[in-house]
Amino acid sequence: MKIDVAFLPKEITQNDLSHTVCVVLDIFRATTSIVTAMANGCQTIVPVISLEQAHKVAGQSKTILLAGERQSIKIDGFDFGNSPFEFSRDKVENQQIVMTTTNGTIAIQATQGACCTLIGAFINAEAVIRQLQSYEQDILIVCAGTDRMFSLEDSLCAGLLVDLLVSKHPVQLNDSARGAQIMYTAAKNHLMEVVIDSRNGQRLMQLGKQAEIEYCVRKNIVSVVPEYKENRIILGK
Amino acid sequence: MKIDVAFLPKEITQNDLSHTVCVVLDIFRATTSIVTAMANGCQTIVPVISLEQAHKVAGQSKTILLAGERQSIKIDGFDFGNSPFEFSRDKVENQQIVMTTTNGTIAIQATQGACCTLIGAFINAEAVIRQLQSYEQDILIVCAGTDRMFSLEDSLCAGLLVDLLVSKHPVQLNDSARGAQIMYTAAKNHLMEVVIDSRNGQRLMQLGKQAEIEYCVRKNIVSVVPEYKENRIILGK
Repeated sequence: MKIDVAFLPKEITQNDLSHTVCVVLDIFRATTSIVTAMANGCQTIVPVISLEQAHKVAGQSKTILLAGERQSIKIDGFDFGNSPFEFSRDKVENQQIVMTTTNGTIAIQATQGACCTLIGAFINAEAVIRQLQSYEQDILIVCAGTDRMFSLEDSLCAGLLVDLLVSKHPVQLNDSARGAQIMYTAAKNHLMEVVIDSRNGQRLMQLGKQAEIEYCVRKNIVSVVPEYKENRIILGK
Repeated sequence: MKIDVAFLPKEITQNDLSHTVCVVLDIFRATTSIVTAMANGCQTIVPVISLEQAHKVAGQSKTILLAGERQSIKIDGFDFGNSPFEFSRDKVENQQIVMTTTNGTIAIQATQGACCTLIGAFINAEAVIRQLQSYEQDILIVCAGTDRMFSLEDSLCAGLLVDLLVSKHPVQLNDSARGAQIMYTAAKNHLMEVVIDSRNGQRLMQLGKQAEIEYCVRKNIVSVVPEYKENRIILGK
């Protein structure tokens, strides 16, 4: 089994993914929030890029909730921003949500054509690995990055997934998977310090969101693995 | 001073580099060979992508030498392949060389418009840092990668340069620079083992070229810093 890591979605735009299982990571905060919402009983999340698309998908429905942020601030009139803390059970259970995110949605859509796309994060890492073990295909971990640039926190989480896979399976790593693993192994004992120093970490700290950063890098606190299928995210097997 | 690392040339195709000093790295083996040739007295190297361009630039000249390889094997009829061991003083002193490389040339050409492009490698790392200290502009380290994919050895060398810069200056690292530094710091005490395990390392090992790998990851054994200017590589200041 081969393991590949794309540090940016644009690296894979020309890949044939029909024999590949993808895992998408956007740690601050799209995939962490999606995993949290699904763990709290949310029924479906439709990821879209623009505000216009969000309104179009939600249509006139009074039951579909809207989630999204720009520059880490909740969009006016929306039900949720992009903080995982907002997606609590009392707010999301049995709900349908349309979520507008730029980086996360681009990464998810870049995996179109893959035989399966899983939504990963630090918080469900072990669960993702358990699910990956049920496939025989090669694995591609796709980091969302930020505004088309490398994101440290996504790459570190990719490294965690690689490290877990290596410990369980005979796998073949390409250079980026090995690089991510080296980075994660070096940073794992002071992960909070490293991610606070990252571009997105700095931005969230300036907004007073240290508790959220701490939550986003906690490992294995939920056991669900959302799956992207036919334009929507649902709970996988 | 800001330090950025591009793990692949295509990451920077839309950047305005007019206020940026670039360092290009293609450790296995274009930039290591270029630095070696220039250290041994070579006058100029013109990097081109294709065989056709190499012949076109060399024209009918009997004095211009040709260098290049495909799949790590010297091109038939050429004076040099791409092994740094071939560019010895008795062969290159005062010579003009046209060198065809794919990854290295793409990376070098991607820095067109930069206020300066330096050619770096492990073997001249400290010299590159000394020269970078004479500029006030931001620094962008460009890894050549291999066939448009992330290369571990280039990224590790980028990490070495970042680590040296950090130790000498108050600098501002973006996420990829920080990632490269973390990787290098984690791998530096067993660099040979890590690069042998990389895609290009494996390929060179299969060709029996362990001594070359060892040479390519030796640090600071030459003190020249070639510079790319007006389509040719010459010795910088």
